[in-house]
Amino acid sequence: MNKPSIPKGTRDFSPIEMAKRNYIFNTIREVYALYGFRQIETPAMENLSTLMGKYGEEGDKLLFKILNSGDFMRGITDEDLNEGASGRLAAQLCEKGLRYDLTVPFARYVVQHREELQMPFKRYQIQPVWRADRPQKGRYREFYQCDADVVGSDSLLNEVELMQIIDTVFTRFGIRVSIRINNRKILTGMANYIGQPDKIVEITTAIDKLDKIGIDNVKAELANSGVNEESIAKLQPLFEISGDNDSQLAAIAEMLKDDETGSKGVEEVKTVLEALKPLELKNEIALDLTLARGLNYYTGCIFEVKALDVEIGSITGGGRYDNLTGIFGMPGLSGVGISFGADRIYDVLNQLNLYPQDAIQSAQILFINFGTAEAAYCLKIASQLRQAGIRTEIYPDSVKMKKQMSYANAISVPFVALVGESEMESGLISVKDMASGEQKQMAVDDIIQLIRAKH
Amino acid sequence: MNKPSIPKGTRDFSPIEMAKRNYIFNTIREVYALYGFRQIETPAMENLSTLMGKYGEEGDKLLFKILNSGDFMRGITDEDLNEGASGRLAAQLCEKGLRYDLTVPFARYVVQHREELQMPFKRYQIQPVWRADRPQKGRYREFYQCDADVVGSDSLLNEVELMQIIDTVFTRFGIRVSIRINNRKILTGMANYIGQPDKIVEITTAIDKLDKIGIDNVKAELANSGVNEESIAKLQPLFEISGDNDSQLAAIAEMLKDDETGSKGVEEVKTVLEALKPLELKNEIALDLTLARGLNYYTGCIFEVKALDVEIGSITGGGRYDNLTGIFGMPGLSGVGISFGADRIYDVLNQLNLYPQDAIQSAQILFINFGTAEAAYCLKIASQLRQAGIRTEIYPDSVKMKKQMSYANAISVPFVALVGESEMESGLISVKDMASGEQKQMAVDDIIQLIRAKH
Repeated sequence: MNKPSIPKGTRDFSPIEMAKRNYIFNTIREVYALYGFRQIETPAMENLSTLMGKYGEEGDKLLFKILNSGDFMRGITDEDLNEGASGRLAAQLCEKGLRYDLTVPFARYVVQHREELQMPFKRYQIQPVWRADRPQKGRYREFYQCDADVVGSDSLLNEVELMQIIDTVFTRFGIRVSIRINNRKILTGMANYIGQPDKIVEITTAIDKLDKIGIDNVKAELANSGVNEESIAKLQPLFEISGDNDSQLAAIAEMLKDDETGSKGVEEVKTVLEALKPLELKNEIALDLTLARGLNYYTGCIFEVKALDVEIGSITGGGRYDNLTGIFGMPGLSGVGISFGADRIYDVLNQLNLYPQDAIQSAQILFINFGTAEAAYCLKIASQLRQAGIRTEIYPDSVKMKKQMSYANAISVPFVALVGESEMESGLISVKDMASGEQKQMAVDDIIQLIRAKH
Repeated sequence: MNKPSIPKGTRDFSPIEMAKRNYIFNTIREVYALYGFRQIETPAMENLSTLMGKYGEEGDKLLFKILNSGDFMRGITDEDLNEGASGRLAAQLCEKGLRYDLTVPFARYVVQHREELQMPFKRYQIQPVWRADRPQKGRYREFYQCDADVVGSDSLLNEVELMQIIDTVFTRFGIRVSIRINNRKILTGMANYIGQPDKIVEITTAIDKLDKIGIDNVKAELANSGVNEESIAKLQPLFEISGDNDSQLAAIAEMLKDDETGSKGVEEVKTVLEALKPLELKNEIALDLTLARGLNYYTGCIFEVKALDVEIGSITGGGRYDNLTGIFGMPGLSGVGISFGADRIYDVLNQLNLYPQDAIQSAQILFINFGTAEAAYCLKIASQLRQAGIRTEIYPDSVKMKKQMSYANAISVPFVALVGESEMESGLISVKDMASGEQKQMAVDDIIQLIRAKH
């Protein structure tokens, strides 16, 4: 029989990987909760009518569709079949699909439960999503998203708190980051300013690449997409804006002073940055006028987080949107949200070796098994340790010492307890520190102290 | 536009439901970890070749199958189509399916990763599973399983520790339970004893119903399934065995003394019960000779947990099996496991109203928003509270007091903080206890003490 395998683009998570992932999710969860966000979960399967048409034509193709149960061929005609593997045939064979992100299910949730919800609604959601993308390094067909959103409130205080959340999460991780902020209205203002309001998509798409491809290529791309030379020249001062946030704000305010939308965007960013000043975040918040992000969706402030000590793309992002639920017939609901990129954060923590030892450890002490009588004695001591909150294992079989010690090494347990006849007589336990190799006889209470102190 | 909905048999979990579910999962997780179990996760999607044929013909029909991406009609002939919605056609359209339980993916995981795994392998897994069952009260198409297993060890110490885990979990929940234990070998021994070893399935199936249908109906069912009268009469003493575990063990040992398998089963149960005696569990462990459970799978001790104060089926179960991975070509791997029924535990905790207040609470204090200057002042205080670990919210908009208080009630926050001009001058904060209605002025440190004391 062939060794079994899993579908391409999916992953098993081993105990050590899970411990690391749990450390990430728990940290994010705790910080979200500190700010009063409340968790929800939605089903893995949504009706395809909920999912289709929300992610563009390309997205529709990337949805995993679930074959109808029972007589899935009912109602399907020869004509349908002759079309081949069309979207229409797929829609007849399948009425459900796996969620593609957490945003559309959240929008569906808000509309479906609107009568029960008290606005503002601050929710977070940490669940896997599925995309039939071509798998490649760092891109998976199943991956977790960690989203927090506030809907039903226009207040910029929400933006301020989301910045604090980002700062707190990365401070807890020990990852130094730069938190970039911009505003979609500033980008609109710029398009207006250079006299090409209709080219806003092309302009922001090009500007977004400034970091990667450089100013000359951005200009070439702009020209290519039909922005005229004069307009491109008018953009030049934008690329030259520099200095701290206040100087950049002053410069862009001046540039956009005659554009209402642009000025509003400047005002919004200013309000957020001013409110953050006295809060003394640990990480830098930098105005980045070239930051664009998913333009069609966001309408106000936008954010993106870059790790400072590792070369990797954005590890967190978000922004304000004006119309989350319009697609489901409930217009005018504004909100703002962020999403932590758990897989990338995992890579950064790995590269910088930042996992706290305690978070990724399983048992804290392992009792070697010397036989039936000894194991029975150890069971009682293990109970005492567990009651004190110490994660305790007894090796279940009284096999060779070498095998038991090799298990101890495999699970990276910091202490091994040895209880033989002499220990049963004295009531003391021989405890070996696996790091130093040191071994001494200890009472149960002293073991508890020792392990707690290691925390 | 119609109000959007979710597929039948699936559920959204609101913040309060999620908080309750997290309390359940976290409690189980913590106890598993206390005993050195380590978490793994496997993908939602498995290859259908992994899933098919593992759950019987009925189970295969209940698998959710995922339509192949891209040209799903490739290679499908008219002949295939003429068959209609057959299993064969489904297998051509779909190569992946959603997992149906956690056991088969775990077996697949063990075989796939056998070179990396150190035995014994103690894993737990808490993930949703999907079944295309007809939805009905208490039965869902998506639900969580919470499994722990030790594989690669024959030691009965594992059974002992699993009993301790069950006892600890339900003690933490405050649910009084009876933990029933039996052994598959005892059931085999009985079938041998009455001279009908070939009728073991029918006998255990009938005996398993004793509680529900009574002794006369059990006998009728046995007769119906071809067990002869003499054999049924020989079973009679079994139904009359009573008393405490020791007396029952003595009686069944006597009855099965000439049957090797049966005697081994008695010995195994005895060993487990003896080892548990000095550990003084909080809940009763009761030998139940009529307990049968999924006969074809289990081969040694079997367990089942009943809540004492609520009428509900089994809320936890498990047992030992001899051949987890044989289906994937790796024979002879023995293991023992348990599975907590999260949905039923949820119902029990709800009925008995046993959720600790702190576990289901979101924010611990909410700051009322009186305007821009006040909110800015509150942001700093909120930061201090959060640094002290207090879950703190500021109402984002400075709307009418009534609306803000209605929000406070909706999220069940125990304290509301009011900071107006006079508070900003005095540096003290007006804190209202939402339960008593009492309001007093307090310093930040005193608020921290107050809320911590409420824990």
